[in-house]
Amino acid sequence: MLTKNKLISELKNNLPDVLETIEERYAYSQDASVPTGRVEIPDAVVFVENIEQVQKVLKIANKYRVPVICRGAGTNVVGACRCVHGGIILNFSKMNKIIEINPVNMTATVQPGVVVGNLQKEVEKIGLFYPPDPSNLAVSTIGGSIAQNSGGAKSFKYGTTKDYILDMKVVLADGSILKTGSNTIKNATGYNLNTLFAGSEGTLGIVVEATVKLIPKPQSRKVFMAYFDSVSETVAAVNSVIEHRIFPATIDFMDKNAIQTVEKYYPANLLTDKEAALIIEVDGLECSMSYMEDVILKVLTNASALQVSHNEDEYNRIWTARRSSMASCAKIKPFVTTDDVIVPREKLTQLVLGIREICQKFNLEVCMVGHVGDGSVHPQIPIDYNDEDEYSRYKSAKSEIYELTASLGGILSGEHGIGAEKRDNIGLVVNSVALDYMRKIKKTFDPNNILNPFKIF
Amino acid sequence: MLTKNKLISELKNNLPDVLETIEERYAYSQDASVPTGRVEIPDAVVFVENIEQVQKVLKIANKYRVPVICRGAGTNVVGACRCVHGGIILNFSKMNKIIEINPVNMTATVQPGVVVGNLQKEVEKIGLFYPPDPSNLAVSTIGGSIAQNSGGAKSFKYGTTKDYILDMKVVLADGSILKTGSNTIKNATGYNLNTLFAGSEGTLGIVVEATVKLIPKPQSRKVFMAYFDSVSETVAAVNSVIEHRIFPATIDFMDKNAIQTVEKYYPANLLTDKEAALIIEVDGLECSMSYMEDVILKVLTNASALQVSHNEDEYNRIWTARRSSMASCAKIKPFVTTDDVIVPREKLTQLVLGIREICQKFNLEVCMVGHVGDGSVHPQIPIDYNDEDEYSRYKSAKSEIYELTASLGGILSGEHGIGAEKRDNIGLVVNSVALDYMRKIKKTFDPNNILNPFKIF
Repeated sequence: MLTKNKLISELKNNLPDVLETIEERYAYSQDASVPTGRVEIPDAVVFVENIEQVQKVLKIANKYRVPVICRGAGTNVVGACRCVHGGIILNFSKMNKIIEINPVNMTATVQPGVVVGNLQKEVEKIGLFYPPDPSNLAVSTIGGSIAQNSGGAKSFKYGTTKDYILDMKVVLADGSILKTGSNTIKNATGYNLNTLFAGSEGTLGIVVEATVKLIPKPQSRKVFMAYFDSVSETVAAVNSVIEHRIFPATIDFMDKNAIQTVEKYYPANLLTDKEAALIIEVDGLECSMSYMEDVILKVLTNASALQVSHNEDEYNRIWTARRSSMASCAKIKPFVTTDDVIVPREKLTQLVLGIREICQKFNLEVCMVGHVGDGSVHPQIPIDYNDEDEYSRYKSAKSEIYELTASLGGILSGEHGIGAEKRDNIGLVVNSVALDYMRKIKKTFDPNNILNPFKIF
Repeated sequence: MLTKNKLISELKNNLPDVLETIEERYAYSQDASVPTGRVEIPDAVVFVENIEQVQKVLKIANKYRVPVICRGAGTNVVGACRCVHGGIILNFSKMNKIIEINPVNMTATVQPGVVVGNLQKEVEKIGLFYPPDPSNLAVSTIGGSIAQNSGGAKSFKYGTTKDYILDMKVVLADGSILKTGSNTIKNATGYNLNTLFAGSEGTLGIVVEATVKLIPKPQSRKVFMAYFDSVSETVAAVNSVIEHRIFPATIDFMDKNAIQTVEKYYPANLLTDKEAALIIEVDGLECSMSYMEDVILKVLTNASALQVSHNEDEYNRIWTARRSSMASCAKIKPFVTTDDVIVPREKLTQLVLGIREICQKFNLEVCMVGHVGDGSVHPQIPIDYNDEDEYSRYKSAKSEIYELTASLGGILSGEHGIGAEKRDNIGLVVNSVALDYMRKIKKTFDPNNILNPFKIF
C-alpha cells in the first residue's frame, strides 16, 4: 500500500469524519488568498470534534511526516490555510461551542471554531464586550483570529486578539497538550506563551481551547463619516483627532475609489465626489457622547462633508458600507486581492499616496480602506488572475508596495499575518537575527516541520 | 592569572566603569527580595552607557561563561537581580535617557534605566499617558518593568507593561542585536517577540532600548476609599462594581492590618476600626465623572464608611497611604516580605481568608494589599530573617500560600515575576509541558546559560 493510502486508512480508522474523494478535497484547495495558479489539494480533510481527535491526527501526521493545516472559516487572505505541498486540513467548524461565559471573572472560554461575531453577540447580552472585530467577523472564527492575531477597526482603542487571550490549550506537533497561561487578568509566571502562539499562524501548535478576557460593554457609540478633498487633509484630520486627546474606538479610512465602488454595488448614500473619508467611532458612557461629538465636530471643521449616525440604523449603514468594500471590489474583476501594510502614523500620507502611485504605474485599479488610526492600510486591487499580464503587473506592484512600506519604517502585516503569500518578503521588515530566532523557535516546537509548513518564513 | 582575574581585567580593558573592590561589589549582593542567609556577591559590577558596551560585556561573559544579571533600581522582590552563583551585574542606571516622545505616533522610545514615574511625568506634560504603574514607580526602571512584566494598580483597566511594548532592541547572549517589533500599533508579521522578551526576567536577552505605546491621558480622575466590616462584603463590592458595567481604572484593597500599620507609621486619616477597604479609582472624560461617582456610591451603599477625593491633595493622600503599605510594614520587623499571588476573581474571598488563616497558623503577622479587581493579592509578612524559627515559619507559610493559590486555579505571580525565590514552586501552577518548552526556549536563546541563570525555573 502506498504511504498516502496508509495515511488515509489510518485517519479513517481513528477518526469519524474524514473527506478523501478528489471532489471533496478540491473544495479545500483554496482560502481567501489570491489563487497562485497551482492547485493545492490536501491529502485529506478531517473534521475534528474534540481535543482527543486533534491529538490523534497530530500523532498520525507526525508518524507519516505529513503537514497539518488548520481551517476555521477559510477566510484568510494570505494563504495561511493553504496546503502548499499537500497535507491534512484540520477542519474546526464542528468545534464551535462557547464553553463558558463567566461574568464574575469577565472571561469566556471557547472552542476554536466559534465565529467571532457570535461570541461578541453572546457576551453583549450580559453587558460584556469582546473588542477584536475583524471585518469578516460574521463568518471568521476565533481559532483563525488567534492564529493570525487579528485586529479590526477597533484596534486603535482596544488592541488586537493577542491582548485578550488569558489561557489556551494547545496541541503540539507530538500530540501533547500545552497550557499557555491561566484564567487570571495578569500573569508574570514564566514566559508569555499566550502571545507566542497568538500570531504564529498554526506553525507552533494547534489551539484547541481559549479563555479570553472580556471588558464592560460601552454604553453608547456613535459614528462620524467625514469627507475630505485630499488625502493629506484626511490624514491631517487623523492627527488632529489625536491631538485633542479623546480616544475614539476607531479611526478608519476609505479612499475615493473605495467609496465609489461600494456606492456602485451596495448603495449606502455615500458621497462619491470626495477624495477620501474618515470613519470615526466614539464609544463610552452615554453621558460622555455629546462632549465627544462636540470635540469631533470641532476637529472636523475642515471636512468637506459630514455624516453622523443618530441611531443604530445609521450606525449600521455606515459600517456596512465600510465592510462591503472588499465584496464590492470583487465585482469589478474575477478576484480582489486585499493587502495589509502598516506604518508609524506619521508616515500615513506617504504610504497612501505612494500606493496609489505604484498602482497607477502598473495600470491597476486600487480601492484603499484601512484602520488609519493604527497607521494600517488595506489596498484592495481587483485583478483577473487568468490574465497573465495583469497578474504579473499585480505581483510587481505588490513588491513595490512592500518596499515602500519598509522604507517608511512599516511592516508587512498589522492583522492578517504573513502566511504563504508574503513569506518571501518578510526579510524586508524583520531583521535577520529576529528571523533566525523565529526559525529556531519553530524548530523547537515542531522539529519535523509538520505544522503549517511553508508559512511566515 | 586566575580566570576571575582575567575576566575582571578584560572587562576593565574594554569598559570605562567597572566596580571590582569587595566593598563595592557587596553593595550589589542583594535586591529587595528576602535575604537568603547566603551572601551573593557579584564578580564585577559594570555601569553601561550605551548598546555597544552591553554587547562588549556579553561577548566577554560568553567567553568566560560567566552569568550576566541586569539591574536598574534593584527593586525586584523575587531575587531577579541577585547573583545566585557569581557573575557580572550590568548596571543600567546611566542608560536613563528618554530618546524620543513622538506625539503623532503616540510613542516613546526610552533607554532601560529610565524611571517609570519620570516617563509618566514627561508624557503627561503633552497630554499623553503611559499607564503601567508599579507601586515603586518613583524609583523602578522601565528595563526592570519590562523584564518582570510589571503591572500596578491600573492593570484592571489598562493591562500590564507587555501591552505597551511595540519594539525593542535586545542584546542576545552572543552579543548580537535583535529587533523585536516595529514602531506600529499592530503587528502580525512573524512571531510576537516583544511579549516573549517581556516577562522573561533577563533570561533570554537584555533589553537596551524600547519603544512603548502611549494613549491619551484621561482628563479627570477620582478615588473612593470604601471601608467594610468583613472581607466577604469587600469582595462582594468588587463584583458589584463589575456588575454595574462601568470600568474603573483601579479596584485595590487593603486589609485591617495593612490599614492600621500604615496609619501607625504614616498617618493618613484612614479608618483603623474597619475590616478591609477598597480603593476604587475612576478616570476618563471630565463630563463622565459625576455619573461614575453616582454609580460607585450606589454600589457602595453597603460600605460601612466612605472617603472620596475631591481634589488632587485628597487623591494623593489616599494613594500615598496605599503605596506606603510596604514601607510601614518594614517598620515592624527588620524586613518585610511581599508576595504576589493571583486567582480568578471569583476565588478572591477564599484566597484572602485562606492567607490570613495560614499566617495565623504559623504565628506570622500579615498585612494584605492587592489589586483585587485583577484577583491579585500582595500578602506582606514582616519578619526577622535572623530569627531562624521565624524564617522557617515564614517559609512554610509561603509554601502553603502557593498551594492554596494553585488549588484555586491561580498562579504565583501576576506582576513581580518568579525570579530566584519562586523557581522551586513554579511547577505547582505551570504545566510540565509548558515548563519543558520554556526551558527549550531558554536554551535556544542562551545555550551557555549566562543570562540571569537560576531564575524562573
